[in-house]
Amino acid sequence: MRATVMFGAGDVRIETVPDARLIEPTDAVVHVTRAAICGSDLWPYKTMEHGETGRRMGHEFIGVVDAVGAEVGAMKVGDLVVAPFLYSDGSCVFCREGLTSACLHGGRYGFDGVDGGQGEAVRVPQADGTLVVLPVGKDDALMPSLLTLSDVMGTGHHAARSAKVGPGQSVAVVGDGAVGLCGVIAARRLGAEQIILLGHHPDRIALAQEFGATDIVSERGDEAVEHVRALTNGFGAHSVLECVGLEQSLLTALNIVRPGGAVGRVGIPHEEAIPAAQSIFYKNVTIAGGPAPARAYIPELLPDVLDGRIEPGRVFDRVVRLDEAPDGYRAMNDREAIKVLIAF
Amino acid sequence: MRATVMFGAGDVRIETVPDARLIEPTDAVVHVTRAAICGSDLWPYKTMEHGETGRRMGHEFIGVVDAVGAEVGAMKVGDLVVAPFLYSDGSCVFCREGLTSACLHGGRYGFDGVDGGQGEAVRVPQADGTLVVLPVGKDDALMPSLLTLSDVMGTGHHAARSAKVGPGQSVAVVGDGAVGLCGVIAARRLGAEQIILLGHHPDRIALAQEFGATDIVSERGDEAVEHVRALTNGFGAHSVLECVGLEQSLLTALNIVRPGGAVGRVGIPHEEAIPAAQSIFYKNVTIAGGPAPARAYIPELLPDVLDGRIEPGRVFDRVVRLDEAPDGYRAMNDREAIKVLIAF
Repeated sequence: MRATVMFGAGDVRIETVPDARLIEPTDAVVHVTRAAICGSDLWPYKTMEHGETGRRMGHEFIGVVDAVGAEVGAMKVGDLVVAPFLYSDGSCVFCREGLTSACLHGGRYGFDGVDGGQGEAVRVPQADGTLVVLPVGKDDALMPSLLTLSDVMGTGHHAARSAKVGPGQSVAVVGDGAVGLCGVIAARRLGAEQIILLGHHPDRIALAQEFGATDIVSERGDEAVEHVRALTNGFGAHSVLECVGLEQSLLTALNIVRPGGAVGRVGIPHEEAIPAAQSIFYKNVTIAGGPAPARAYIPELLPDVLDGRIEPGRVFDRVVRLDEAPDGYRAMNDREAIKVLIAF
Repeated sequence: MRATVMFGAGDVRIETVPDARLIEPTDAVVHVTRAAICGSDLWPYKTMEHGETGRRMGHEFIGVVDAVGAEVGAMKVGDLVVAPFLYSDGSCVFCREGLTSACLHGGRYGFDGVDGGQGEAVRVPQADGTLVVLPVGKDDALMPSLLTLSDVMGTGHHAARSAKVGPGQSVAVVGDGAVGLCGVIAARRLGAEQIILLGHHPDRIALAQEFGATDIVSERGDEAVEHVRALTNGFGAHSVLECVGLEQSLLTALNIVRPGGAVGRVGIPHEEAIPAAQSIFYKNVTIAGGPAPARAYIPELLPDVLDGRIEPGRVFDRVVRLDEAPDGYRAMNDREAIKVLIAF
């Protein structure tokens, strides 16, 4: 079968790889119909050392179940399913608490002999705990929004939950990427009154406003901090969603949160320390977040997607075929595209 | 009047200072009957540069109201009151939310022309918002426990709340000082099932066990982390109360918290960064805490003290007169005493 493989920074290829097949009785094989390129894929796209073997890419996909292991009971061959970006057994102590991203038997696509999501098929471990059957046809118009349940919509929601977004509150979203935009959707969905987007790109800002952003802050650094404070009675925002993962963006987030407020961070951190430890202590700021338990959030978010109450699929502004995926990476890296959908 | 003044590291003296008197119509003057030396006072006791003017000390006290300003209505001359370690107006947006430690008109004793608490009398700003009238006589046997409502019991409770302690959970308390010991009381009071104290001093460990600690970890560093994990199914504790404030203790706290768990930090931080930013991200750990809104917690904690359900006053293991306060500092600094009460 054909699949996306990264061999180093800027070097993504479509290669022939071994066909996906059942190995464990808890596996399913999914024939992929839609996949996505993730902002987190751009980090290795910028930094990965070149090698001969390459790394299988992708962790967001929808597809049709092609085969199930003997112990799989929650789906059958022919079902359309969405896969969250981590697999999880659904039964361990952490899954039962809703933290599927800490599953004791979970893991990542593209590692440990598991296929990546940007390929023609994927062996999905722990299929019963992981996959969610979708009650629509495989080419339904909702596909882009349903695909965001794999990652970005769940991640934006996790940022909002971690930042304790609630009715009537002021929320600031740091970052206008696909996750930040989904954070705006999540904040509005949870009842925020004021949603301030910190971003610089006119097309993304326009989309954020359609999603519910009430204010835009396009400055950077100290000027951005001053602008947010001016918009929030001088106090800062109750909830700040950190959707970038750089030290500067985290520092901005910590500087614009109100005393007693919370920062939900979902941007993958590349620094070893959280800055401003004293300032956030004296402000009694809560810092939370991490890899979203996307699987646990699907039952909550899916009805809103099916009913059209939220349209996170609008973050996809480019569709490519599998053999065009390398150019999809380039387009996202060059910020030509917010997020790229791969249609099979 | 006589009051405690620190002139530099190791140099605490009892000096004659101007009498406390009403300045603002929202002030009360309190004639102090009991005061305490705080673990946080030991930081300047170790590090303060010598100077001629000195710094008025103390922020935990109980006393009798001696005079009230024209706008004070919640107490009258002769009432016995307890003062939380920060003054606050009780009416600003943060006070109304329960974060009295972020009061817009609040402040610290010993600064900005306000008396310190370790003296014969104190002018208390924002008296109506700050002071709580006590329904007991001034020499009641409950005085030590009531005095802890000024700071250490509220701070231990804040650590527990910030760490999301709840019924049936595993809790680790880092630090066996007075705040850590009150953290044990708070964790038990909130229903924790397992309470692991990380400490080294036999007398404090014994008291912690009486307060409800179920396990003691006396190792340091990596060995302490291993021991806590062994006590918690390998996962770590749901809630960790960081009651020290050093980088090593915070790192220990972050290393012994369970995925999805929370660290409540109340030890005053002296470092500029929070370590292990990636590890806590991947574990979805919540970090919260800061200066306790001790005033806001008094209505919740006072009934338990009055009924004898909690006995935080047992952390006081030495009583001195005001002129012996300098030796009280020395005794706490040398770890001869857990916490020193000054009786007037």
